[in-house]
Amino acid sequence: MLSGKSVIRELSEYATARGKEIGYENVFDFSLGNPSVPVPAAFNEKLCELLTTRPSMEIHGYSPSLGITSVREKIAASLNRRFGMDYTGDDIFMASGAAGALAHAFRLVTKPGDEILTFAPYFPEYGPYTAGCGLKLRVVPANTADWQINFEAFEDMLTENVQAILVNTPSNPSGAFYSEETLRRMSELLLKKEQEFGHDIWLISDEPYREIVFDGKAAPYVSKFYPRTISCYSFSKSLSLPGERIGYLAVNPACGVSKMLVVMSGQISRGTGHNCPPSVIQLAAADCCDLTADLSVYETNMNILYDGLTALGFDIVRPGGTFYMFPKALEEDAVAFCKKATKYDLILVPSDSFGVPGYFRIAYCVDTEKVVRSLEAFKRFVRAEYP
Amino acid sequence: MLSGKSVIRELSEYATARGKEIGYENVFDFSLGNPSVPVPAAFNEKLCELLTTRPSMEIHGYSPSLGITSVREKIAASLNRRFGMDYTGDDIFMASGAAGALAHAFRLVTKPGDEILTFAPYFPEYGPYTAGCGLKLRVVPANTADWQINFEAFEDMLTENVQAILVNTPSNPSGAFYSEETLRRMSELLLKKEQEFGHDIWLISDEPYREIVFDGKAAPYVSKFYPRTISCYSFSKSLSLPGERIGYLAVNPACGVSKMLVVMSGQISRGTGHNCPPSVIQLAAADCCDLTADLSVYETNMNILYDGLTALGFDIVRPGGTFYMFPKALEEDAVAFCKKATKYDLILVPSDSFGVPGYFRIAYCVDTEKVVRSLEAFKRFVRAEYP
Repeated sequence: MLSGKSVIRELSEYATARGKEIGYENVFDFSLGNPSVPVPAAFNEKLCELLTTRPSMEIHGYSPSLGITSVREKIAASLNRRFGMDYTGDDIFMASGAAGALAHAFRLVTKPGDEILTFAPYFPEYGPYTAGCGLKLRVVPANTADWQINFEAFEDMLTENVQAILVNTPSNPSGAFYSEETLRRMSELLLKKEQEFGHDIWLISDEPYREIVFDGKAAPYVSKFYPRTISCYSFSKSLSLPGERIGYLAVNPACGVSKMLVVMSGQISRGTGHNCPPSVIQLAAADCCDLTADLSVYETNMNILYDGLTALGFDIVRPGGTFYMFPKALEEDAVAFCKKATKYDLILVPSDSFGVPGYFRIAYCVDTEKVVRSLEAFKRFVRAEYP
Repeated sequence: MLSGKSVIRELSEYATARGKEIGYENVFDFSLGNPSVPVPAAFNEKLCELLTTRPSMEIHGYSPSLGITSVREKIAASLNRRFGMDYTGDDIFMASGAAGALAHAFRLVTKPGDEILTFAPYFPEYGPYTAGCGLKLRVVPANTADWQINFEAFEDMLTENVQAILVNTPSNPSGAFYSEETLRRMSELLLKKEQEFGHDIWLISDEPYREIVFDGKAAPYVSKFYPRTISCYSFSKSLSLPGERIGYLAVNPACGVSKMLVVMSGQISRGTGHNCPPSVIQLAAADCCDLTADLSVYETNMNILYDGLTALGFDIVRPGGTFYMFPKALEEDAVAFCKKATKYDLILVPSDSFGVPGYFRIAYCVDTEKVVRSLEAFKRFVRAEYP
């Protein structure tokens, strides 16, 4: 559990230090996935309204351990409306961001020593998250053609010891989201293997980027495809408030035990020191659960970078969403590549910590003006180092 | 971990249901430790000011994993000023209430299988909290004379396997706080046993009621007495905002490894799904860390109940603080006693779940008017059932 600092945090700290030398506006800091657009005004207004008009006990009092009832009901109704699901408030558990939701999901359906599969490239914090539950995280090699699933490798690794599958769609770091075809095929495979093994296999879906999808599309809702799905959501990216640690888990009622799992989540909290997200933040977020911040800047940035970098000769799967891009590095050693990039004040994250060698991640949740300027730096970098 | 519901929550739910039948104002619900006074106006004002004047990213962005630097520094300065300590911001870790702080403290200084001692009567959630870390919680029998420490029993149980001691002062449920003499004697014993065993023994001090002390007194600051102290604090009671889940742990720098332990806390978070309390709540709480809500009603209620119940023949150690009182039941079986009390719409918590038989807890964080009316119900109860 007490493993070293994250590579991403280290790069981000380097970028901050370099910014002190040359001005942060001159550092092309693409290291951190920190939303760059403001929260919707409605969120702050709702919060102030609660603070100025409601009795203290009603807004600052203890939340029930599963979350405030009206909040859970509003979220269920929103999911039903938008994704055609059949949740009730009793299928929703309020959590401290997606990280908190995942911490509960793992403990709900696995026990220490179990295996859990995820897919490269993957969010590196899954390592400490699963290690904290005593799980063996095994990583299915990437499908580098389009960042969908490498089904051959997946089926090979889906042995009897696997209790859960962890997906992240749209994906940090690839920027891809799973197509309906991918999700259908995954579901069929899981149902087949459940029969074969005689035990349940749970699908844990980490989806904080669900609302950031490009080209007017929508990401297919994972839980729609497989009954034993636990969706883990955070408002961090959609409402642009990552610091407020507000999210939930939603258990598909088609699994037949959703209400029991939600009640168990409340018991799990007592062992991990979690006790619901803050009451007043729950109330304000529920009121804004159909809104998003103005997320269009991410698509603008993606298009500028994708076109600019492709023109420079980079090999990139065009992202379907998120604020990440995952191009192929210009040499096999992505760490060496990213180190050279820092000479041009380009802060890029090598792909090794995401479970794939030879790529790098760009987090383009920065001002568009900076994205445009960065293309000059990329040009100088590529011409000088890879002529 | 997945143990049953808490007795307190069950009683509270009974009280709510009964309230629907006869009007909640007619139920003398003394079950739940939910602060009854409003948050200080300054807290809501600060929060609204932040929301209306500061850039979104500054108030809603990710907090550093140990907490916001300025917040940690303000808290250290406040503790130094008030308790003569030498904390720096680096000795403070922001946590989701005292429960979150305890979850980190346990994981910092113990490992699964270790023993931890606490003292009866004790907060029953310590059971699931410590079980969640794989600890063996052993409970030192109560000193019923004054709810200080039964040192004879303590010394007997303080064997080589004990890695940490957990204290709660002022105490839920007894209402007593440890005197300087008690803390000095405890410290001497721990230092002696550390020598004898050749290993550190850590003192984890759960002190959410630190600011609720009566008769113009102050509770001695535990960490002042023993270098290896981790203080776990919550603003829930002092600022009357239990739903906002904001607190911290403060490691005494005299232990020599405080900064390392605080950094380790950030790593522990990655395994439990915690990721700092909400940014905007951190900022507002830090600004109010020298304030309290108007806590005087708790002392008023205590005096009314203490005088009234003593006159009815109850045997009570007069509370030094908190909003709890822990009288002796009028029969040996406290569960039977509390069950009879419900006939008079008095909702009292039997002491068994606090690790002592034969007493009951009154949580008098209710309106004074109701406290006064409750004395009539107590009188009818006692005269009818224990003539």
